[in-house]
Amino acid sequence: MLAFSLTEFSKRLRKVKNSMERQGMDVLLITDPANMNYLTGFDAWSFYVHQLLIVMIDEAEPIWIGRGMDASAAEITTWLHKDNIIPYTDDYVQSTTKHPMDFVANLISEKGKANAVIAAEYDAYYFTAKNYIQLTKMLPNASFVDGTNLVNWIRIIKSDAEISYIKKAAEIASKSMKRGIESIAAGVRECDVVANIMHQQVSGTESFGGDYTAIVPLLPSGEKTSACHLTWTDDKYKEGDPVIIELAGCYRRYHSPLARTVYIGEPTDEIKELTDVILEGVEATLEVIRPGITCEELELIWRNSIAKRGYEKESRIGYSTGLNYPPDWGEHTASLRPGDKTILQPNMVFHMIPAIWLDRYGVEVSETFRVTATGVEVLANIDRKLFVK
Amino acid sequence: MLAFSLTEFSKRLRKVKNSMERQGMDVLLITDPANMNYLTGFDAWSFYVHQLLIVMIDEAEPIWIGRGMDASAAEITTWLHKDNIIPYTDDYVQSTTKHPMDFVANLISEKGKANAVIAAEYDAYYFTAKNYIQLTKMLPNASFVDGTNLVNWIRIIKSDAEISYIKKAAEIASKSMKRGIESIAAGVRECDVVANIMHQQVSGTESFGGDYTAIVPLLPSGEKTSACHLTWTDDKYKEGDPVIIELAGCYRRYHSPLARTVYIGEPTDEIKELTDVILEGVEATLEVIRPGITCEELELIWRNSIAKRGYEKESRIGYSTGLNYPPDWGEHTASLRPGDKTILQPNMVFHMIPAIWLDRYGVEVSETFRVTATGVEVLANIDRKLFVK
Repeated sequence: MLAFSLTEFSKRLRKVKNSMERQGMDVLLITDPANMNYLTGFDAWSFYVHQLLIVMIDEAEPIWIGRGMDASAAEITTWLHKDNIIPYTDDYVQSTTKHPMDFVANLISEKGKANAVIAAEYDAYYFTAKNYIQLTKMLPNASFVDGTNLVNWIRIIKSDAEISYIKKAAEIASKSMKRGIESIAAGVRECDVVANIMHQQVSGTESFGGDYTAIVPLLPSGEKTSACHLTWTDDKYKEGDPVIIELAGCYRRYHSPLARTVYIGEPTDEIKELTDVILEGVEATLEVIRPGITCEELELIWRNSIAKRGYEKESRIGYSTGLNYPPDWGEHTASLRPGDKTILQPNMVFHMIPAIWLDRYGVEVSETFRVTATGVEVLANIDRKLFVK
Repeated sequence: MLAFSLTEFSKRLRKVKNSMERQGMDVLLITDPANMNYLTGFDAWSFYVHQLLIVMIDEAEPIWIGRGMDASAAEITTWLHKDNIIPYTDDYVQSTTKHPMDFVANLISEKGKANAVIAAEYDAYYFTAKNYIQLTKMLPNASFVDGTNLVNWIRIIKSDAEISYIKKAAEIASKSMKRGIESIAAGVRECDVVANIMHQQVSGTESFGGDYTAIVPLLPSGEKTSACHLTWTDDKYKEGDPVIIELAGCYRRYHSPLARTVYIGEPTDEIKELTDVILEGVEATLEVIRPGITCEELELIWRNSIAKRGYEKESRIGYSTGLNYPPDWGEHTASLRPGDKTILQPNMVFHMIPAIWLDRYGVEVSETFRVTATGVEVLANIDRKLFVK
């Protein structure tokens, strides 16, 4: 079942421990499901209850702690020894009298780490305020420090095996986008278009299947294209509607996101102009991508390109992506925006989505790219244009 | 766009304020996306960045705070006045130097609440430790208290309008389950079965479309049926495989979950016996459901029924369900388990899923039910049995 070799898992763990060591951390608590998967392979939809990995700098293996009924998923999907899979009983689940972090704190004490420097992912999904309050109360002699994104920053450079998964995801993304564009027409319900897209995302290709994406397809239409994170309704499309499709392909939890805009009928001059401005900006930006350029330098190329046409955009134009779980396929590390001095390196992967939303409509055209040894590789295979139906 | 009348939203808000008043809270910060939707209608896939509602006991309307690009979604989907939709700039997003809770704390101060009793949902998804640390640092004179599940406990009794949505969701769940069972056969890939299920979940029925579910379909097969929260692979089913399908229908964010077990080929005696034990237990339990019985009394009926056949089950057998967002369609309030003294009342809705997982296989047969004025209404419409293919 393991998606990567034991050697690869072992390298990842070593990098995490090196980073812990540099920062003086004895223990790292990991709740981000993507980070749990990255280090152990753990893969189940069980992140709706409290679960975590404990990485101790002086222990060979991380410890998985989760709900009793999910221990078998940990045995099936991880490389961990059974002794390091430690379940809590079901009465801890969503209880008003007991909290799973009490169990975790007791285990940390048993392992002799009650006085240690303990890092946790303070701003990660699923590491709640209550987790923090219980742990600090139960371990008053430990020193707690913030370990947010420690593992995420290691994830930013992908191995070749990871890149091969992301390329499969890109193939699924391209197919799913084509299926969506084909399905859109005046009189068709939004939900029926999304049903076709999701069918394609999950069935994948003849040679490999798709996984669930960390974000569902986003398909605002008409004036709702000004609101980029709306999902869908059962309304019917009508002549004159712009429709934005943002989706991803996913293969074994690795994502390749993609956005395109469709127009039903003859596009207005405004939409055509906005699309041209975005396409020019995307092309100018793709031309300069190579190892050594920083995220903010890249964004500035885009910014200058659209400024020539009298446009500006406040929000970031992209972010690092790859392995992930709901609710986000972004990695929360490098962003393509002013102030981000991250230097692009080979096998970084970004979703560049320089969308522009005006008051009554918006246009999105995005690409997921890999930084190569000398330049850039765009992963999806679909025309970069306004699709007219 | 509003899914409910203004009168209904206003009743919900009044109940929340009454509960705040009883508990001496001046301000309640709400990050659970389901609770945000419940009080305002807000509905967008934007919960991957920090966002929240501020309910102040002495202000008529809650305040929505979120990312700039999501303010238009708040304008489109909520009943809030535009002045109460307050966006933060994009440089707060996943930044290492600024945190959205700094913005929230400043606003709370501007509203004159820097010395107030401020409740937050300490153990809710998306209320991170970092949120808590920043807020308490920025508002040192406020008294912070735990408001976890305050709104959830109000959600536990549904209005008739909510029940009508859940019934639509149940119709979608039944259709999706039938589509899944039909699709399963030896030689078919797991991902292709799920693709069909998800197509049905989203296209819904001819008269209404489906929404995304808070949990993707869970379909462990073979020995993996012992691990209930595994998703799917692109492996092919084979003769002799048991397959568990757990899914939900969703209509405008309201869920009706459902589980069934399928056997490919002639079921073993062990699987047939386990199914019989579960069916007997489910039927015995459904017979006694009526207003006035407690959750733990209900669970005891199940427990006694399976004990007669020599079985026991450690984990809870059900939970309150309804309005929700990823990662969970459970409401985190009442559970059907020992110690839960919640009294069943009309228009409560539970997913009763008394699955049993043994070492090498498991069986799940579930029902979502509504408590009526005099008894129970089972919402899905599909045979309760082991499906043999």
